[in-house]
Amino acid sequence: MTTTAGGRARQPVDIRPEAPAPGEPRFVAELTPRVDEAIRAALARYTLPARLREAVEYSVLGGGKRLRPLLAMLSCRAVGADDRLADSSAVAVELIHAFSLVHDDLPAMDDDSLRRGLPTTHVRFGEAMGILAGDAMLSLAFQVLTDAAPDAALAGRLCAELAQGTTGMIAGQVYDTLGGFPPGLTPRQHLDLIHHNKTGALITASCRMGALAGLWPRADHPHLAALTAYGNAVGLMFQIVDDLLDVEQTTEQLGKRAGKDEQAGKLTFPGLLGVAESRVEVDRLRSIAHAALAPMAPDAAGLADLCEYLAVRTK
Amino acid sequence: MTTTAGGRARQPVDIRPEAPAPGEPRFVAELTPRVDEAIRAALARYTLPARLREAVEYSVLGGGKRLRPLLAMLSCRAVGADDRLADSSAVAVELIHAFSLVHDDLPAMDDDSLRRGLPTTHVRFGEAMGILAGDAMLSLAFQVLTDAAPDAALAGRLCAELAQGTTGMIAGQVYDTLGGFPPGLTPRQHLDLIHHNKTGALITASCRMGALAGLWPRADHPHLAALTAYGNAVGLMFQIVDDLLDVEQTTEQLGKRAGKDEQAGKLTFPGLLGVAESRVEVDRLRSIAHAALAPMAPDAAGLADLCEYLAVRTK
Repeated sequence: MTTTAGGRARQPVDIRPEAPAPGEPRFVAELTPRVDEAIRAALARYTLPARLREAVEYSVLGGGKRLRPLLAMLSCRAVGADDRLADSSAVAVELIHAFSLVHDDLPAMDDDSLRRGLPTTHVRFGEAMGILAGDAMLSLAFQVLTDAAPDAALAGRLCAELAQGTTGMIAGQVYDTLGGFPPGLTPRQHLDLIHHNKTGALITASCRMGALAGLWPRADHPHLAALTAYGNAVGLMFQIVDDLLDVEQTTEQLGKRAGKDEQAGKLTFPGLLGVAESRVEVDRLRSIAHAALAPMAPDAAGLADLCEYLAVRTK
Repeated sequence: MTTTAGGRARQPVDIRPEAPAPGEPRFVAELTPRVDEAIRAALARYTLPARLREAVEYSVLGGGKRLRPLLAMLSCRAVGADDRLADSSAVAVELIHAFSLVHDDLPAMDDDSLRRGLPTTHVRFGEAMGILAGDAMLSLAFQVLTDAAPDAALAGRLCAELAQGTTGMIAGQVYDTLGGFPPGLTPRQHLDLIHHNKTGALITASCRMGALAGLWPRADHPHLAALTAYGNAVGLMFQIVDDLLDVEQTTEQLGKRAGKDEQAGKLTFPGLLGVAESRVEVDRLRSIAHAALAPMAPDAAGLADLCEYLAVRTK
């Protein structure tokens, strides 16, 4: 805990008292190459058919915000540990995220041909490889977690978190694209159920995995619950911002097709609440996220910055 | 180790000295309903969108030989433990197997509309759900393993085995359908590489997981290596018999489209070695499998029977 000259403990909202800069926080440039390096090193450990390796590397090393790995690493920092302890968790959550994008882009799903300004995996490698590369990334995520763990019990715990986050994400995708909601819910409850699962589950898992890796073997530490609350708030906030960007930005700015939610008649926050109310919801979640970090300041400064960055991001 | 009245240790090939009956061994009828029950109980623990649950249950409870769960349960018995210790492993390997069938049947893959005499999952539920239900089963397999484990370290170890088996299976499917072999291999080496991965990896993982669940925490016990050897032999044998059935049986007998390997121009054992030589290879692997079980007789009687059953199966 950093204290001022007068000895008064800092409040978490004071970590970054100025308005956030529109650009990326410092740690993005610092940690993002570490994520790529960790992914490369992890994949290099496995014997894979040449074309499968190429498709997996294309899918997972083709850029992206690396949000989930950053959350894992910064959550590890937030509990006062060296963020390198979260490296395998960071790789695992990015493999899961990349798998989900590859399968979501398939012709039978969103049928997207463009991702981060490049041809999607199935366009580049064929549809069969799109399916198989996605499957391989899902499986490799668990392999990376278990092979690299210094402790089998930690590996088991991390696999539990990752599996829960992944199943939640897939369930959310089903709700979003195919429905199947429990009866009697309002549209707003549908929307919350979609996003709590589709984006929220893996984002929360990323925070929890980073926290567990850093806290281990103190798995019942209250910081774990605090980072779960942070993850839940940031996950929903991230999705609302994503919905807002889809309405407000062009395809060129996003690097992927814009306006597709509206074209697809999808339930979104701006569609349901309007743009202004959605922005209010973003601010509410932002406050919840900051409050959750309070007991971990100043180690949680990175997560506080990341929350600000995600609230104002433009792509 | 059972001994005869004269005190001489039995040889493993003597466990079942008569020619095997063409029907199923006793334990198939005993254990198969247990597998279904364990799968139902495991799936009941999770909240899933209604339509996703329906598709997952349709895919994993629609019959099948339950080979991999039986291998897990009987391997657990073979190391002298109660086979209920292998229940979550049995569920997990069957979920992985079922996921692989659902994705293999997709239009962009084998494009099959019939499986076990019923419409394939994507024909019944649509292609998007075929992709998502497969993904969900893959993820649920790890969730089942970690949620049900009495010990996080055992869960970590089981996840490692399952992930290795699953990635191997996917790599084998890539070799089989899309190639990408390392340079300089003979056709026979291609075939071995396909089957060692495509069928062998998950079958061996099933044996190892059952053994680990039974032996835990004695994970370095020599029985684990013996059951790995058994799994490798039975896995390859199973695939050669599968290839032979595809040549020799009708669609009606198999409950899935026959002759498709030849139509697809696939590399198979009968195609490469001829039918007679393939049968010789089956017998060779059968002997290896029985030899591997020797140190575990009579607890390994179930695995010995299963090996015989697999060697002479007609579907």
